[in-house]
Amino acid sequence: MSARVITVRRDVQAAARSSAAEFRLRCTERGTLVVNVLSSPGAGKTSLLAATARFWSARENAPRMAVLVGDLATDRDARRLAPWTPVVQMTTGGACHLELPLVERAMAALGDFDGEFLFIENVGNLVCPASHDLGEHLRVLLLSTTEGDDKPAKYPKAFRTSQALVVSKLDLLPYVPFSVQAAAADAHEIQPDLAVLPLSALNGQGIDEWCRYLETTRTSILGQSNAE
Amino acid sequence: MSARVITVRRDVQAAARSSAAEFRLRCTERGTLVVNVLSSPGAGKTSLLAATARFWSARENAPRMAVLVGDLATDRDARRLAPWTPVVQMTTGGACHLELPLVERAMAALGDFDGEFLFIENVGNLVCPASHDLGEHLRVLLLSTTEGDDKPAKYPKAFRTSQALVVSKLDLLPYVPFSVQAAAADAHEIQPDLAVLPLSALNGQGIDEWCRYLETTRTSILGQSNAE
Repeated sequence: MSARVITVRRDVQAAARSSAAEFRLRCTERGTLVVNVLSSPGAGKTSLLAATARFWSARENAPRMAVLVGDLATDRDARRLAPWTPVVQMTTGGACHLELPLVERAMAALGDFDGEFLFIENVGNLVCPASHDLGEHLRVLLLSTTEGDDKPAKYPKAFRTSQALVVSKLDLLPYVPFSVQAAAADAHEIQPDLAVLPLSALNGQGIDEWCRYLETTRTSILGQSNAE
Repeated sequence: MSARVITVRRDVQAAARSSAAEFRLRCTERGTLVVNVLSSPGAGKTSLLAATARFWSARENAPRMAVLVGDLATDRDARRLAPWTPVVQMTTGGACHLELPLVERAMAALGDFDGEFLFIENVGNLVCPASHDLGEHLRVLLLSTTEGDDKPAKYPKAFRTSQALVVSKLDLLPYVPFSVQAAAADAHEIQPDLAVLPLSALNGQGIDEWCRYLETTRTSILGQSNAE
């Protein structure tokens, strides 16, 4: 837990200090699963990560997590997350996606983090972030029920390169023309192996399944249990 | 009205055939106000344009409109609009924003359009489209009530370069943590002259004010009434 907010800004002079593969390997060796979280603006990335931190904080022997959060400007998201989890705000100065050098500087600002989960909350954008490997083990895409179930085929690369689809804002389902089944079917046309996790960060529905999915996936990818 | 859907695709070889200023001038001479519509994916651009076409179609001597609609892939939006208005689908093949050469090809596919309003529905993205002048007279940004009222300062360029902010999905206001006043105040910090138009394309609330705003703005910019 930390209420301190650190902000790192894009350094346009910085060369990539290492490849995404090297970053991923370093995190693997520490036992840290790196999760790159993508979505449109306002789909609920920050709310999901806050709900995840709250869920785990209430449990004994829960995984430790930290968040590197990206935006064009402001440290608003880091301030929302700071009561619940260690967090570093990254600002891109207008760029539409995160790149590895900024993530590495944010990781350094976080200190010697060796917890089980490092979440990278990307800039709100369904297009550009899909083309950039940030050294993550797992790419998670959020689609909120208010965005419409016709989005997968319209933004194919984001869906094709992700391993999990979180359908967020399930609490609004009674008020919007959205079918979880239709969205999942459209997404599976593009990426048949996509795990689909409907949830509401507002009322907590599905948060336990989401956290269980993360823990199972970490064990499967890193070959380690949380207890190790 | 046309139920025919034409699709034009990005031609990566095409040089810009004319400048945005030249395109704007040609449209001014025809009496056509060009409106570039920006938002996140799923904020309701297509629904707003369909509601606009329906509103005008019920009125005598209403303005004539056409829509050029952009997406990475699919002609889904054009199919939604085709029952209500002439429309051409533009697909960018993965690019995160529209550029003028594609708009000009779509305009040619539309034929000799000399109606009062040409809407360009940009790719769903709050970042990249803000940096590209498509020859519009008016840039309109949609922010849906489900995206959160903290977005303006986080995506400053889109707000700074727009003349109007449509707050969409007003029907969902009872169910989401969103204040129209807070969003407007945040946006006015960035662009004090921004017109703010709250509405719901679903239940029709605010659509008349939106259409009146468009007609007044056209008269003010082009110096012509719709009757001319």
